[in-house]
Amino acid sequence: MKGDIRGFKAGSCHCGIKKDKDDLLVIYSEVPAVASAAFTSNKVKAAPVILSQKHIKEGIISAIVVNSGNANACTGEIGLLHANLMAETTANALNIKKQEVFVASTGVIGVVLPINKVISGIKKICSNLNYCNYSNWQNCASAITTTDTFPKIVSDSFMIGKRKCNIIGIAKGSGMISPNLATMLSFIMSDILINKKYLDIAFKEVISESFNSITVDGDMSTNDTVCILANGLAENKIIYKKDRNYSKFLSSLRYIMTNLAKMIVKDGEGANKFIEIEILKARSKLEAKVAGLSIAKSNLFKTAMYGGDPNWGRIMSALGNSGIYFKENKVDIYFDKLLIVKDGCGVNFNEKEAHKILSKKNIKITINLNIGKEESKVWTCDLTEGYIKINAHYRT
Amino acid sequence: MKGDIRGFKAGSCHCGIKKDKDDLLVIYSEVPAVASAAFTSNKVKAAPVILSQKHIKEGIISAIVVNSGNANACTGEIGLLHANLMAETTANALNIKKQEVFVASTGVIGVVLPINKVISGIKKICSNLNYCNYSNWQNCASAITTTDTFPKIVSDSFMIGKRKCNIIGIAKGSGMISPNLATMLSFIMSDILINKKYLDIAFKEVISESFNSITVDGDMSTNDTVCILANGLAENKIIYKKDRNYSKFLSSLRYIMTNLAKMIVKDGEGANKFIEIEILKARSKLEAKVAGLSIAKSNLFKTAMYGGDPNWGRIMSALGNSGIYFKENKVDIYFDKLLIVKDGCGVNFNEKEAHKILSKKNIKITINLNIGKEESKVWTCDLTEGYIKINAHYRT
Repeated sequence: MKGDIRGFKAGSCHCGIKKDKDDLLVIYSEVPAVASAAFTSNKVKAAPVILSQKHIKEGIISAIVVNSGNANACTGEIGLLHANLMAETTANALNIKKQEVFVASTGVIGVVLPINKVISGIKKICSNLNYCNYSNWQNCASAITTTDTFPKIVSDSFMIGKRKCNIIGIAKGSGMISPNLATMLSFIMSDILINKKYLDIAFKEVISESFNSITVDGDMSTNDTVCILANGLAENKIIYKKDRNYSKFLSSLRYIMTNLAKMIVKDGEGANKFIEIEILKARSKLEAKVAGLSIAKSNLFKTAMYGGDPNWGRIMSALGNSGIYFKENKVDIYFDKLLIVKDGCGVNFNEKEAHKILSKKNIKITINLNIGKEESKVWTCDLTEGYIKINAHYRT
Repeated sequence: MKGDIRGFKAGSCHCGIKKDKDDLLVIYSEVPAVASAAFTSNKVKAAPVILSQKHIKEGIISAIVVNSGNANACTGEIGLLHANLMAETTANALNIKKQEVFVASTGVIGVVLPINKVISGIKKICSNLNYCNYSNWQNCASAITTTDTFPKIVSDSFMIGKRKCNIIGIAKGSGMISPNLATMLSFIMSDILINKKYLDIAFKEVISESFNSITVDGDMSTNDTVCILANGLAENKIIYKKDRNYSKFLSSLRYIMTNLAKMIVKDGEGANKFIEIEILKARSKLEAKVAGLSIAKSNLFKTAMYGGDPNWGRIMSALGNSGIYFKENKVDIYFDKLLIVKDGCGVNFNEKEAHKILSKKNIKITINLNIGKEESKVWTCDLTEGYIKINAHYRT
């Protein structure tokens, strides 16, 4: 059934960090899973990030414990102690090693965790973990949300030989979203049998095209974490090289992670429109991405998109600020299929049509640099009064 | 009298780029002036920037011609032709060399200048230039505004020996303001007698502490220009080394440029509050500034300031994203004199008092990194619904 991932159990509860909604989640794999993870590149790292970076080094994870409502960041020694207690409590309750527990937190920075509530919560959840169907996973996704307006979940399955492999991902946004992650948590569970090295390779490739290709407000959080577990219970022929089976897994993982990333953008704080920016014919993939993100992060561009204003000058200007190599007089810009800029200069486009394109909920902008062969896509949302309202009084 | 700068004449008119307000300005020095200038570092440079970068190389400027309402950027070959025509028309009308004319433009990107209107306007202004008092200079400042809500002007005078030296600066903001300039134009006129080399040195030093220490929205424009002219008519003992007289000039220039820069921030699009961020005890001046600007550019920080929310976690997070060297557990943060964070952790501060401080129109935030001896100040404003409103429909 959709959502079934062999050997994974989960449970969530309201332990009392938030006012009423669930704020604590435990995911457990009955057999130790190979794992990969990526973390925020912010120099200020939350305590759970520091701890999980240590635990992931062994490459084996059996449980994930996550709280929402409190980031456990900028909490000093006591924060580290609390993250350790979360791991320890989970390990004891599940009879696994502490190093096999992956810890994550999201929420307000700088407030000490109500650790007793969290410990009681973990014990309660662990005593009643259940196999999950799709709707159970949705509850898991809800338990890790903060200002998200909907839970983010994507599942897929595919055949390797005669064995069905299953994969599911959950994620939360929705402010502080920027490349190299953000207050962005995502956990991906699969029963595929794969060698740790190739899990790492696939994960690294896909994260660059998914979670590291989105931006909501250009701010990077202290807590960002993406983690994938593969417990092997599908009992497929093990993936240990880049063969056809690896490609199947890669494409499924890409489907999961890209869609989770897009959901995060669609649910960006105050977001009204979803914008895909495609950079074509750049010198390198990296330059294409840097250019795309420079545009995607520009407040002036994002407000123009909000207003449906075909102000392409702001795209040129953001491109010029990106620091990448390009020739101004070679740049072409399209809104959907409508040519707006040719060779760096505005063409006499149909303003009405341009405005119509920019009035849609999904906008695609293509920038052809015409100087190379590489391309990249990034995703962002518009900047609206809603963002201001949500963020002006987040903590108070 | 206040505003009198020996030998400088100016005039402005409405040539027809904007709907009604003045949109063209000519400033003329009766004797050639030594000049320094700084330009946008955006790779996409407006035509007048490209031209003026060439003209300033000689170090001698006699006239400045500026239009508002049209940036003459992303306009290709025709744009360069138009910038040249603006210089040529001014030069012919004033009987000076074309290379002595400094050209600048500000306004919407990607629209071809109505050059005939501009040429007629320049001729008209040049046939009727006048010596300026303070109120005339105010009109000049108005002629270069776009979305500014008030003209920006600062004047000063000081004695060198028995000679009075005068200096005046005008500027325009107010969106796309970011370090390394922005859609920011500023022109500074002085009658001081100074050797070109020491004018350059003083200008470079002060620009780093003034116009390059502010940010409104992190976007850098295609047109940013700051230019200073010194025509020597004060007939003071020439400044040709770093002596006491040089210091007098430097401190006056700092007064002019810092105050113009602060005015630009105060008039930032939608700005409600003026925020000074002071970074203390960094390893280097540069790192202090980079850290300050990273905070100043964070949308999350800026919206928290708007809401008067003492969400110091966003300051720590932005600091962590700045890329500079610091130790999280050494950071202290103050709102005014109120200690909020000690050794990287929040202290039990009086929330009411913090909120009161952040409700003021002028907010000072001090971040002590406690790892070095250098410091820097940057200025920014809050991010409000007003910014969104102004920028969502700028062009339409």
